[in-house]
Amino acid sequence: MSLEASALQKARVAYQPKLPKALRQHNIRVKLGAPAYPATQRQALKKAFPKTYGQRVAAIVAGGDGMHRRPLRAGVVLSGGPAPGGHNVIAGLFDALKATHTDSKLFGFLKGPGGLIHGKLKELTSEAIAPFRNTGGFNLLMSGRDKIEKPEHLAACEKHLADLDLDGLVVIGGDDSNTNAAVLAEYLRARGARTCVIGVPKTIDGDMKNREIETSFGFDTAAKTYSELIGNVCRDAQSSVKYWHFIRLMGRAASHITLECALQTHPNVALISEEIQARRMTLSQVVDGLVDVIVKRAKAGTHYGIVLVPEGLPEFVPEIKTLLGELSVILGKDDFAGMKYVAGLRDHNERVQYLNNLLTDHSARVYGQLPPDIQAVLQTLDKHGYPLLSQVETERLLIDLVTDKIRLLRERGHEDPKFSPLSHFLGYEGRCGAPSNFDADYGYALGYTAAHLICAGLSSYTVYVGNLTQSRDKWVAGGTPITAIMNIEMRKGKPTPVVRKALVDLNGGPFKTFARERDAWALNDAYVFPGPMQFFGPPEICDAPTVTMMLERP
Amino acid sequence: MSLEASALQKARVAYQPKLPKALRQHNIRVKLGAPAYPATQRQALKKAFPKTYGQRVAAIVAGGDGMHRRPLRAGVVLSGGPAPGGHNVIAGLFDALKATHTDSKLFGFLKGPGGLIHGKLKELTSEAIAPFRNTGGFNLLMSGRDKIEKPEHLAACEKHLADLDLDGLVVIGGDDSNTNAAVLAEYLRARGARTCVIGVPKTIDGDMKNREIETSFGFDTAAKTYSELIGNVCRDAQSSVKYWHFIRLMGRAASHITLECALQTHPNVALISEEIQARRMTLSQVVDGLVDVIVKRAKAGTHYGIVLVPEGLPEFVPEIKTLLGELSVILGKDDFAGMKYVAGLRDHNERVQYLNNLLTDHSARVYGQLPPDIQAVLQTLDKHGYPLLSQVETERLLIDLVTDKIRLLRERGHEDPKFSPLSHFLGYEGRCGAPSNFDADYGYALGYTAAHLICAGLSSYTVYVGNLTQSRDKWVAGGTPITAIMNIEMRKGKPTPVVRKALVDLNGGPFKTFARERDAWALNDAYVFPGPMQFFGPPEICDAPTVTMMLERP
Repeated sequence: MSLEASALQKARVAYQPKLPKALRQHNIRVKLGAPAYPATQRQALKKAFPKTYGQRVAAIVAGGDGMHRRPLRAGVVLSGGPAPGGHNVIAGLFDALKATHTDSKLFGFLKGPGGLIHGKLKELTSEAIAPFRNTGGFNLLMSGRDKIEKPEHLAACEKHLADLDLDGLVVIGGDDSNTNAAVLAEYLRARGARTCVIGVPKTIDGDMKNREIETSFGFDTAAKTYSELIGNVCRDAQSSVKYWHFIRLMGRAASHITLECALQTHPNVALISEEIQARRMTLSQVVDGLVDVIVKRAKAGTHYGIVLVPEGLPEFVPEIKTLLGELSVILGKDDFAGMKYVAGLRDHNERVQYLNNLLTDHSARVYGQLPPDIQAVLQTLDKHGYPLLSQVETERLLIDLVTDKIRLLRERGHEDPKFSPLSHFLGYEGRCGAPSNFDADYGYALGYTAAHLICAGLSSYTVYVGNLTQSRDKWVAGGTPITAIMNIEMRKGKPTPVVRKALVDLNGGPFKTFARERDAWALNDAYVFPGPMQFFGPPEICDAPTVTMMLERP
Repeated sequence: MSLEASALQKARVAYQPKLPKALRQHNIRVKLGAPAYPATQRQALKKAFPKTYGQRVAAIVAGGDGMHRRPLRAGVVLSGGPAPGGHNVIAGLFDALKATHTDSKLFGFLKGPGGLIHGKLKELTSEAIAPFRNTGGFNLLMSGRDKIEKPEHLAACEKHLADLDLDGLVVIGGDDSNTNAAVLAEYLRARGARTCVIGVPKTIDGDMKNREIETSFGFDTAAKTYSELIGNVCRDAQSSVKYWHFIRLMGRAASHITLECALQTHPNVALISEEIQARRMTLSQVVDGLVDVIVKRAKAGTHYGIVLVPEGLPEFVPEIKTLLGELSVILGKDDFAGMKYVAGLRDHNERVQYLNNLLTDHSARVYGQLPPDIQAVLQTLDKHGYPLLSQVETERLLIDLVTDKIRLLRERGHEDPKFSPLSHFLGYEGRCGAPSNFDADYGYALGYTAAHLICAGLSSYTVYVGNLTQSRDKWVAGGTPITAIMNIEMRKGKPTPVVRKALVDLNGGPFKTFARERDAWALNDAYVFPGPMQFFGPPEICDAPTVTMMLERP
């Protein structure tokens, strides 16, 4: 039985992604349009990217004989957290290279950008790729989180790309990896190296999107996988009628997944970090909002509910951000001497008291309000000098605070709702699911397009495939100059050019729809049960894009 | 958008379960075979069930005009944790009652057996049932865990059943609920009441099975849902190449789910509680086994892996069972005075020291080895006087102990494998999934058969539908006398007749297959990725039963 594939694996390997008409024609070419510039900080970006700033938008169009009919040599690297559809990017890239010329070659760098830096790679043959078509995960090449930033990294990359004599390198990754692609592209251009660098927008978090890039691949599958499970838990809540389920979802920097899952399943509460930040809400206010729904439902005889929480929420609460900043200074001063001093104190109470004396009034109060295990976590800084907030299980923090608040209500003789909470984290379960038909097709089209951009000799572009809410035949494809989607942000204390992250737009269709419906969802059960993702049924079940996409690009 | 069903929900409501040929024919009747007796303790069971002991096995067969063509009145109750397929039991029951006579009536008791005790119910019309066909969960009627045990409960049930003038009551539940069904059936017979009581085998845990009952409904869907997610995490492990995922699965009393998921996904390690108990393994030995695999894989350059853990594992470790017994006595004595005394001690260290002095040597050592948070949990007894073991997150306990052991190896200058663990619990996410085609068909057939048993005036039977690994047309149906599947066990300190739970059989096909393969799975990656459950594709993907069933009933 070992090493046997599942029945679904076998069937999915045989799936042929629907290639858009725009990419299916025999003779297609890349047409360059108007130059594209960033929305802000143009001078700084121009200075940082003299060779690749202001490039022209590229579109794949019919006609001409734009395709070089010569063998191409390309490399590909998977960067950062896995996302469903990545293997299809590679398959699309490979198939397009082979369609250009049967002697074309594709090399895969292993374990992320580190493989490029250290020259670890393997040739990707038809046989190597075959079992990975339409499968989830990044295990064909494995992934990693190294960054190509330091001069010696750039030089090492240049050497390995030259040794392989590559026409192009495709970097499949999120905003940081596309930033890296732009940096490497600029470096190679400046050095007169011939390899082009093309980025592909990947992230389940859904925060790499902009006017040109409608969505990142992986978001569709991940959101559908989480929504299946959230729907199951909603059904359980209504069946067992006794638990409040707090479900933490991935999304440290943005709440797109939480918002999409809310639109798919209609939970009683979904917290959106961006709204909490914009309304400058305190942690107490967030907790009060939760308790309010719990009390109201209890009065109606309902002692269960569903709360969705984006994992990154605490950092969006302004008072917590302030507290973290102060802790960072207190504990980090004199090369972490503060942290060592605190660690050496006799017990937890002494440590809290010490910090209490050094924090500002409001921060001391916020810190004092946190449960002891979280206070302890925040006494340690990571190597960048920032408290280890990622170790905080946000849904458990909220459960703790809600429980405290309900106890207070009870002691004061106010409401006393039954509250039996259960915590969930949906994360790693969804990053490597078998890609939906959407992500399988979208990934394949992205990879296919990347080959054409390399063929046209373009560098420092991120692939786009657009019109995604329309039928596959209406999809369009091309490339967006990466510098045009960048801005300057502070990184490790320095202004740094980076690809802009897209946060949830509080004036956008998805959030506005959610905001209009949520009061009804809070008090009445309006749960929707999406069920497991389907591949073989009617198109409205198998091929529908996310609700976010439908509301953003109606 | 609110209250709108998902596309899949709409499609599944239209699914018509495949009714076995045996139940599809116009004229079918119930044929009684040989009397059935329990495997052990016959005298005691005969004494406990004088009216319903030694009943004859019932089979649904073709021919005759065995069906009363008169209106039937039946009640149904959903008991205990939800399981996918429960709504289909109700739909099958309803359809069979209506097929018998269009004036038949079905009543659903609300929130479990409590609804029967308190007379809370609603009539189940065609319209009420329609949107719940082929859906997961128990939210049509909601569920509850009340037991019908005390004389006043039995009398209340008798009254409500008589008020409704019911021909039959169908209890959909696990071993305890079927035990309850037998107790109620005996009581009603002894009182000369006319209502028959029929049990239906439900539980995702898969531990209600025996020679006649091949599986409980819900196990198939739950195991497939968990296996989808485990497969995704396996893929993530191979992609990110840096985490050890410890995944806790439901199954407090038996490890069928863990074993089935292991057979579906081939993890590096799967712990089977029954084996640990049979081999009288210590907690240290369990941990050593894990560390051994981690070290061996690390030596081969592999720093990731997958471990499946049944939630009930600790109670199967003999030394922990002994420890819990001792704590139960120490803390429970003089009406919980021990527990109150311990709670009043100054701090955690004093509490541990106090218990350390009172425990036997080996138990003191076992207790001392546990992480502080778990030591604290075990200082509290539940109302039955047993330590709150259910609050222990078994996978986190193992992660703690493995981490300690690896630290010890490092300090002693032995191996020092990289070990970054992540914990998962897959439980509520799978109990209410949309039922697989198997569970949809099986549940429907169970309900359909229940109606025929009521029609034949049988009481104290559990429905069986058999030949489940064959095509639907070869399925057979009937009823097993409940007393024949009972034995006597200690409950709350008293010998009590109960339906036997089926533990994992260490000599059975599923475990033996696992035991043969597991060494290969430990060191080589042999992961299988089952993917999301499919409803519309080829039969080998959509209709396959569990691996457990295939190996048990080849």
